[in-house]
Amino acid sequence: MTDPDNLSAIFTPKSVAVIGTSTSPEKLGFQILKNIVDAGFKGPIYPVNPKATAILDLPCYPSIGAVEGAPELAVIIVPATAVPATLADCGAKGVRGAIVISGGFSESGPEGEALQRQAVEVARTHKIRMVGPNCQGVNNPYHGLCASWPLLTMRGAIAVVSQSGTVAAALMDWAAQEGIGVSGLVSMGNRGDVDEADLIEHFDGDPRTQAIAVYIEGVKNGPRFLAAARRARKPIVVLKPGRTEKGRQAAESHTKSLAGRDEVYQGAFRQFGICRAETLHELYDFSKALAYLRRPTGRRLLIVTSSGGCGVLAADIAAAEGLDVAPLPEAVSSQLRASLPRHFVVNNPLDLTGDANSGLYKDVLAAAKGAFDVAAVIFGDPIVGTSELIDRDHPELVIYLGGADVEREEARLLHARGVPVFPTPERGMRALAQLVRFGRPVEKARP
Amino acid sequence: MTDPDNLSAIFTPKSVAVIGTSTSPEKLGFQILKNIVDAGFKGPIYPVNPKATAILDLPCYPSIGAVEGAPELAVIIVPATAVPATLADCGAKGVRGAIVISGGFSESGPEGEALQRQAVEVARTHKIRMVGPNCQGVNNPYHGLCASWPLLTMRGAIAVVSQSGTVAAALMDWAAQEGIGVSGLVSMGNRGDVDEADLIEHFDGDPRTQAIAVYIEGVKNGPRFLAAARRARKPIVVLKPGRTEKGRQAAESHTKSLAGRDEVYQGAFRQFGICRAETLHELYDFSKALAYLRRPTGRRLLIVTSSGGCGVLAADIAAAEGLDVAPLPEAVSSQLRASLPRHFVVNNPLDLTGDANSGLYKDVLAAAKGAFDVAAVIFGDPIVGTSELIDRDHPELVIYLGGADVEREEARLLHARGVPVFPTPERGMRALAQLVRFGRPVEKARP
Repeated sequence: MTDPDNLSAIFTPKSVAVIGTSTSPEKLGFQILKNIVDAGFKGPIYPVNPKATAILDLPCYPSIGAVEGAPELAVIIVPATAVPATLADCGAKGVRGAIVISGGFSESGPEGEALQRQAVEVARTHKIRMVGPNCQGVNNPYHGLCASWPLLTMRGAIAVVSQSGTVAAALMDWAAQEGIGVSGLVSMGNRGDVDEADLIEHFDGDPRTQAIAVYIEGVKNGPRFLAAARRARKPIVVLKPGRTEKGRQAAESHTKSLAGRDEVYQGAFRQFGICRAETLHELYDFSKALAYLRRPTGRRLLIVTSSGGCGVLAADIAAAEGLDVAPLPEAVSSQLRASLPRHFVVNNPLDLTGDANSGLYKDVLAAAKGAFDVAAVIFGDPIVGTSELIDRDHPELVIYLGGADVEREEARLLHARGVPVFPTPERGMRALAQLVRFGRPVEKARP
Repeated sequence: MTDPDNLSAIFTPKSVAVIGTSTSPEKLGFQILKNIVDAGFKGPIYPVNPKATAILDLPCYPSIGAVEGAPELAVIIVPATAVPATLADCGAKGVRGAIVISGGFSESGPEGEALQRQAVEVARTHKIRMVGPNCQGVNNPYHGLCASWPLLTMRGAIAVVSQSGTVAAALMDWAAQEGIGVSGLVSMGNRGDVDEADLIEHFDGDPRTQAIAVYIEGVKNGPRFLAAARRARKPIVVLKPGRTEKGRQAAESHTKSLAGRDEVYQGAFRQFGICRAETLHELYDFSKALAYLRRPTGRRLLIVTSSGGCGVLAADIAAAEGLDVAPLPEAVSSQLRASLPRHFVVNNPLDLTGDANSGLYKDVLAAAKGAFDVAAVIFGDPIVGTSELIDRDHPELVIYLGGADVEREEARLLHARGVPVFPTPERGMRALAQLVRFGRPVEKARP
């Protein structure tokens, strides 16, 4: 079996021990065990708790040493002071991966820092790859492994790598709500061992991943990070706060990250082809566009809409982002003037007005084919059948706004077909601009 | 009855005629009639259609002249060329308000412009106040009047005034989805008669409205708009595209608005205390904050969170927006150090970590009371009971992220109590910054 990055025990273990599990449903040690069970993990699951005989109908073990066989992965939720010894027991047992949820390490002062150094040393000695400590875990929906919270199982093409568990959970929740899903999620916590460079490499080599969404407050190892980014064939989107002094201070307090001067990051991101998001919604939107759409061959953009207002908002942002809302070529204009109702103004943005239906959009897109590098298709009314209209293999960016229940249903159908839908003209156009800059034309749009 | 702005026939008519209604469910003339019925309009509804005997169990009239009594409001969906004569018939019948949905007027060329002038003249002659033409109608959920689409009935405190029907519908849909609702909605269309100045005045005088959200591509009458804005006691939030040349061109094509130089608008907005939104989501967020929260007495901001990452993101935006993420006063620090678990870092942002529960937040907010002008309370985990925790009468801005189903339920409960919840740290902080600038401390937070 090939395991170039040694992370297979973390992402695709054959068996999992949950050390420090609990019988109290309000405790993390219970919830994580339950999420692993409920996400449908196929291999053996070993709860370790010296005081319980069974949790969730699974027999409990008093220690990791008492488990029959050798679990590949250990999820650890014991008090910080017990973590180094627990890792040593895991090593003795042949465990190859650990996810340390427990806090109380470098984030909490000098004693915690010493404990973390100790834990890392033990893990290295025993050749255990470790995520955490002080993290919200790992989720691999393609392996039924939700060693994290909340319970989310929707599979998709975006990998989420985050120094904040909440940010990771929020992205995965949004993706699940939209029916998009993720290819994997790692809350890195204090990054005692596994860091963003490892994970970029890992997900770059993962065939289910098409884009990597990264939240970091500071890189752990600059040269390794940049090397991984340079080698990556898949788009990387980074949200990194710390543009203000207050933000930098907060970052250093939160994860002991050296937030560093923002200009240095900005320059490196530019040089290494990393797409930078300014907000959480952008981190999600950009990753979604880059994972599910291919790069247009140029910047000539046709905007087709049933809402004049949306056309205006889209044109404004598109122009500000350097996209070319080019005039319609004469051949396209005259064809459209001939086929569209007489009162339509044939223009770019092309406003099909509230009379628009799915067929009208179809005709327009067919007429304009080849004349533009990409079309932004904005449904600005409750238009039924729009999901049928979009050809997944053509460069179209879909925005749906103001359609209420019809919109929710059509967006669901589009997402189920792997076509991303954006919620406002501005968010769609910002995402499209990133796609033009950072999209990968050579790869297929979907796994 | 007082009717200072003559718009009562449009917002609170005793009876409604729908002229140009249809028996085909896919036609607007059917849908609008159905929405008026389904929204629970209490007075008589008169469908006018010479070819039908009844629609939706309501008897049809061949003409407005044939209707018994005098409908106060006429909703008109007949072909553009028939609109002036229809308005004249309405006038003869004593109709006092008209909502002209039909397109084919100034937006479609010189003939349409002439028709519109004619329609406006007829309306003025008969003292009919008219919304439209070429619009998506009016919704007053407090009067059971959904003369618009989609069907939305949720009542709230934000008034929506828009040159784009889609923008208006989207805002109202978001508000309904969140359980916030609106106090009224007007899609102004071509603004033949009623314009943003009229509507700002109207909603400023409407006791249910606490903030006015305006989408315009250009003002119809600069001095009247500015006079209305100056007089208004309620916050006005404006989204006006047209920062780029492409955006301006698109606006002029869409609504024949003179988009004008953006600097002129920017200057006027600043001078007259108008809050400017940059995106649709901001138009919604800012209006929500201004409608449901009171202005903090200063800029000193405490950020309390269960998610360190969210604290960092919030601090970064807050600082960039000029809010003061001030150090904790020594008295508060020492009290918190005494009461919080030992491993907590007592700081601002204050990170309660994943161990946070509703009680911990409560203690912190009590300890910090008086030491800050406003608290941003960020729930960054599935934390049950958060809705109980927030005191509607205190200056707290709530953000909920990464809580999945728990988040959706708690946000629903908070919105039901009139407490707005923001979906990301960035959106929450941007909204808070507007609240500090444009919020009205003198009014109660809710109707």
